[in-house]
Amino acid sequence: MKKSLGEFELIARLCAGLPRSRRTILGPGDDCAVLAPARVPQLVTIDSMVEGVHFKLNWGTPEALGARALTVNLSDTAAMGGEPTACVVNLAIRPGLGQAFFDRLYRGLRKAAAAAGVDIVGGNITRADQLAITIALLGEARGGLLLRGNARPRDAIYVTGTLGDAALGLRILEGKLRARGTARKFLVDRFLNPAARLEAGRALARTRPAPAAIDLSDGLWQDLGHILERSRVGAEIDAAAIPLSPAYRAVAGGDTAFALGGGEDYELLFCMRPRLSDAALTRRLGVTVRRIGTIVRGDRAILLGERKGGSVPRLTGWDQLRARLNQ
Amino acid sequence: MKKSLGEFELIARLCAGLPRSRRTILGPGDDCAVLAPARVPQLVTIDSMVEGVHFKLNWGTPEALGARALTVNLSDTAAMGGEPTACVVNLAIRPGLGQAFFDRLYRGLRKAAAAAGVDIVGGNITRADQLAITIALLGEARGGLLLRGNARPRDAIYVTGTLGDAALGLRILEGKLRARGTARKFLVDRFLNPAARLEAGRALARTRPAPAAIDLSDGLWQDLGHILERSRVGAEIDAAAIPLSPAYRAVAGGDTAFALGGGEDYELLFCMRPRLSDAALTRRLGVTVRRIGTIVRGDRAILLGERKGGSVPRLTGWDQLRARLNQ
Repeated sequence: MKKSLGEFELIARLCAGLPRSRRTILGPGDDCAVLAPARVPQLVTIDSMVEGVHFKLNWGTPEALGARALTVNLSDTAAMGGEPTACVVNLAIRPGLGQAFFDRLYRGLRKAAAAAGVDIVGGNITRADQLAITIALLGEARGGLLLRGNARPRDAIYVTGTLGDAALGLRILEGKLRARGTARKFLVDRFLNPAARLEAGRALARTRPAPAAIDLSDGLWQDLGHILERSRVGAEIDAAAIPLSPAYRAVAGGDTAFALGGGEDYELLFCMRPRLSDAALTRRLGVTVRRIGTIVRGDRAILLGERKGGSVPRLTGWDQLRARLNQ
Repeated sequence: MKKSLGEFELIARLCAGLPRSRRTILGPGDDCAVLAPARVPQLVTIDSMVEGVHFKLNWGTPEALGARALTVNLSDTAAMGGEPTACVVNLAIRPGLGQAFFDRLYRGLRKAAAAAGVDIVGGNITRADQLAITIALLGEARGGLLLRGNARPRDAIYVTGTLGDAALGLRILEGKLRARGTARKFLVDRFLNPAARLEAGRALARTRPAPAAIDLSDGLWQDLGHILERSRVGAEIDAAAIPLSPAYRAVAGGDTAFALGGGEDYELLFCMRPRLSDAALTRRLGVTVRRIGTIVRGDRAILLGERKGGSVPRLTGWDQLRARLNQ
């Protein structure tokens, strides 16, 4: 694509002095990047963040935005049990954003990449009306593959961390929900600065047989639905077991709707035989793990004990719950 | 990223029944795609086409657009001497475009991928105000690497095909230039349906020492500049040798400005010892090859004999010519 001088200069500036590991034979600056051959299966994923759709610039810093654009991809690699290795970045830039902004965005991106052991090996810059950051991330599967289709009846269903925080943080940022003090700070931070559960994914990939896993980007109920669909199984979820943060409880009380339907937490959901206690799994995975249910035969997800002391609702099929949540 | 039901359905629809080679262990539908380990160095590149910036929908068919989005990436792989293998696609969709449009876009993309031996192994769909297709393409370097930094003094400079056609085609589509009949058809087609010179790249990668190469996406003078910069050499280009198509001559006469400064031809420029005649190289590379100049010591590109019968202009440095062309 024909580029302006300014685009070339920006590419050169953003890519200047990028550190790289021995696996990168050639970094940015040629027609393609060149990576050393890998001895294990390769992982590939792509994700995009678009201004006005996924974020607004006044929500956080450019650094956080750059880091988050990589993290959402790292999370996909974590959910496969993989090791992220290298990425290429497509930056759609719009009028009104100067070099200082992109320097800061790339500073955050570089820091997140370095922390995850990822080489930024190439990139492309294009003009557009909206700022958009699209990253394709490569990785290696050194252990088992945590496929969505690996779940079997009688597997326990676990999640890492707490759920629904990012959804509440997003609503706070959008002005749809009011919160104050540490609860506000915690929830907004969970949206703006998610962590990819790479260490947990790695540990799960050493388990035999390989667990099923997915990252919670679209919300527990929706992402569980992907597992059930691919594994051709059903699930029983214990509403009372869904891990909620103190900040979540402070803002939303016991209402689990955001934990069930809210996305962008980037925690892992995984399914495996219940051989270890939550405490033992927590130690092994390096992050708090909570069992929230069981894989069963069939094709339905059932939510048990949603209302404290009330009757047990039987929600037949995840689409219906999602429809309800979206109302 | 949280998605709507419609986005899931579109992904499923577009990815349904995608063919794949044995090297793809897992295609679309999980957190990452999984590719078999490769025994040779891996190539990675990313490129994007944005509506209103790189194309308008009324210029051509959705099929051609889908194919072109891949071809611009294939061209990068060709310019490294590589074999394209797999890609992931990020589709930014805007209101007003229906399923039929995306079916057609993917039909063109699939066809181009199949022709090049590329597996479409994953994708992502996001909402945006502008349609944009961003593709990250993986490849393998089975022969030598055609690096931009490989050019040495006394190398001959060659190009494949004819130059400037796509730039004229673009101006015709934009209504800035008038042309009729077969010339118009040829030039517009050169813009809308470029071919990646994969076979030529492959053949060059078997040459020792590995030639320098770049694909002509930004225009001869600008892309030559990248070669000179990375190889720390200069160049003498014979204006009269620049290959122009009959359609180019019919529309622009002998004015080489579009051939020198116009982008998007996706031909290859390469530099190597002049051991073979143009005719012999043409046979070996499977595409017309023309020698247009020589690599020299220094850091300047000089254009010789630009005006027929006139004085020989000495253009010192590619930036200056580019500035002139951009006026």
